[in-house]
Amino acid sequence: MTETKQSWIEVYGHGGDIETAAARFGQRAEAILDYSANINPLGPPVEVIAALRDGLRAVIRYPDPGHRRFKAMLAEHVGAGTENILVGNGAAECMALLLLALRPEIVGVVDPCFSEYRELALKFGADIRSVSGEMEGAWRASSRRIMELLSGCDLVFLGQPNNPNGVQYSLEDIRAIAGEAQRLGTWLVLDEAFMDFIPHGERQTLLPELSSYSRTVIIRSMTKFYAIPGLRLGYAVGHPDVIQSMSAMQVTWSVNGLALLAGEACLRSGSEYERRTLELIHGERLRLTDGLQALGVDVTPGEVNYLLGELPTGWTAAAFQTAMGMRGVLIRSCAMYPGLGERHFRLAVKDGESNSRLLQTAAEVLQGSARPEA
Amino acid sequence: MTETKQSWIEVYGHGGDIETAAARFGQRAEAILDYSANINPLGPPVEVIAALRDGLRAVIRYPDPGHRRFKAMLAEHVGAGTENILVGNGAAECMALLLLALRPEIVGVVDPCFSEYRELALKFGADIRSVSGEMEGAWRASSRRIMELLSGCDLVFLGQPNNPNGVQYSLEDIRAIAGEAQRLGTWLVLDEAFMDFIPHGERQTLLPELSSYSRTVIIRSMTKFYAIPGLRLGYAVGHPDVIQSMSAMQVTWSVNGLALLAGEACLRSGSEYERRTLELIHGERLRLTDGLQALGVDVTPGEVNYLLGELPTGWTAAAFQTAMGMRGVLIRSCAMYPGLGERHFRLAVKDGESNSRLLQTAAEVLQGSARPEA
Repeated sequence: MTETKQSWIEVYGHGGDIETAAARFGQRAEAILDYSANINPLGPPVEVIAALRDGLRAVIRYPDPGHRRFKAMLAEHVGAGTENILVGNGAAECMALLLLALRPEIVGVVDPCFSEYRELALKFGADIRSVSGEMEGAWRASSRRIMELLSGCDLVFLGQPNNPNGVQYSLEDIRAIAGEAQRLGTWLVLDEAFMDFIPHGERQTLLPELSSYSRTVIIRSMTKFYAIPGLRLGYAVGHPDVIQSMSAMQVTWSVNGLALLAGEACLRSGSEYERRTLELIHGERLRLTDGLQALGVDVTPGEVNYLLGELPTGWTAAAFQTAMGMRGVLIRSCAMYPGLGERHFRLAVKDGESNSRLLQTAAEVLQGSARPEA
Repeated sequence: MTETKQSWIEVYGHGGDIETAAARFGQRAEAILDYSANINPLGPPVEVIAALRDGLRAVIRYPDPGHRRFKAMLAEHVGAGTENILVGNGAAECMALLLLALRPEIVGVVDPCFSEYRELALKFGADIRSVSGEMEGAWRASSRRIMELLSGCDLVFLGQPNNPNGVQYSLEDIRAIAGEAQRLGTWLVLDEAFMDFIPHGERQTLLPELSSYSRTVIIRSMTKFYAIPGLRLGYAVGHPDVIQSMSAMQVTWSVNGLALLAGEACLRSGSEYERRTLELIHGERLRLTDGLQALGVDVTPGEVNYLLGELPTGWTAAAFQTAMGMRGVLIRSCAMYPGLGERHFRLAVKDGESNSRLLQTAAEVLQGSARPEA
């Protein structure tokens, strides 16, 4: 019964599927407090909404198929050449283009991880190999295990920071892993979709030294930090040869014109929005962690804008999701993530007011009359 | 020399590449009168711009990966079931998904045709076979020739109406071609991207009887008729099995949220916008045809919102494009279309004021001091 319910809400296997949730929980979609998608709670920078409003009439024109203006800004932003950058219709398209361009037969993943790695690999005909992270490493795998995975694969996806546990590998580990990938000729894809949520000084990113690792590609997203997932915008950074191969597989005009316009506005939005975001996320993440722990939830010490939790014995993520959903709060069950168990769930770090409501609702559910069926 | 110039402006091989044109002709992009992209000159319905303005804040949410609301409206609009419809990130993505899903080894095209058919087929590893239309058929090929093509291919693209000549095959011919495709087991892709520009009574579309032809898929675009090419929105209609196979290859959230919102508003926009569009296009197409013919241009009697012209002897499309571009009017050279010659060009049918400026500029160029270098 619980399993059936769970597969219903996870019908698309992703967070943010408000409409399915609303139908299931008998709520209005607008009224649901969505903790299942990890989006900057500040919303888009005001400059972005203004740029979109001013640019609406531009939908009458085809997007620039070369993404030239945004790509030039991005190159400056990441400190690379335009020949090192591919602009994609979301980070998901960047991953798909990598698979289409490189045609790996065996794709490696480190569980638990973002479900798209597996789905895309299967979609494009690859077989999957996996290793699992270990609880004592906050669900990271050892670099030794990852290097073993590299040796048996054509391409390996690695989340940095990883989803759903929200932790980084050390730069030292990443260098060793990328070096081994280089030696083996295996492609290493570092998914840095959430890297922007980590303060500059703490980022363990290979980006500044990426030119030493021609077999490593970094993928980033503009839609999480800048809160524009509806528009789809991501990018890949790598050696010009692999970028060129990816670009050759991209469908013309795949990136829409408003996404490009928004992307340019994001990069112009300056450091104040970034500072406010990082400060908010840092403080609220600690508060959520404390609040959940006080309710008996075991919280993985994540570094970004989402948290992986494990419910107390007697609960399942499916039952918790249902009880929270009935109260208008949508969280993400992680029971279907290989490497995790039926008590794991993930939630976003949002603004203070929302987080207070989340904690209060969770307290009602976990401590109150809504006991698990188990 | 002429060839070099031509490949410069056609660097992306498509119309609407205003930025390349602006750089080449020393014009501001905003000041260029774009006759190279075939977009409804009325601009988007007011309801669409209003829906986008009201919906801007929705970019903070992921698009519905199932496109459920828009797909349900589309199903009603085209008179098919939702299981017959795939919503795509532009018609180009629908074509790409067909190739990814069906993996044809040999793809057939009927020249002259939309360049994406060849480009996508090559991108996904197919070989190309082609037949050419004949001038006396307004660049249509005979159904006999198309049936021969079908017998040697796994999949054939056919523009209905075709681009760049703007004419339809008769429904009788289309039935015969689709029947032969069915018999042979060859996939037939009818590209109806511009069908909406033809009055209902004159449309030669297989859509109402498509369920009899499980090997035929129809692709349509929302971006040309509703003037939203910047947003990317198209759809495919076909047998549930092929739609399911295409859907399985689609990257999650490939269709952005504002495109879905705009699509819904387009379908709500009603018949008045449609009536005004068809009336405008009809009248202006005749006026442009007359005006161009008076300048010695041979005009193919197209049925939609663009016209294929052949310049008088002594001119090349490249030289004409340059001379027009220097005067701020961007037209499309068709010299690189297999099946056409170096004097062919295409231009959009726009509003009366723009068309007057186009005709005046063309008169200056073709009759005035701007003689071809030849």
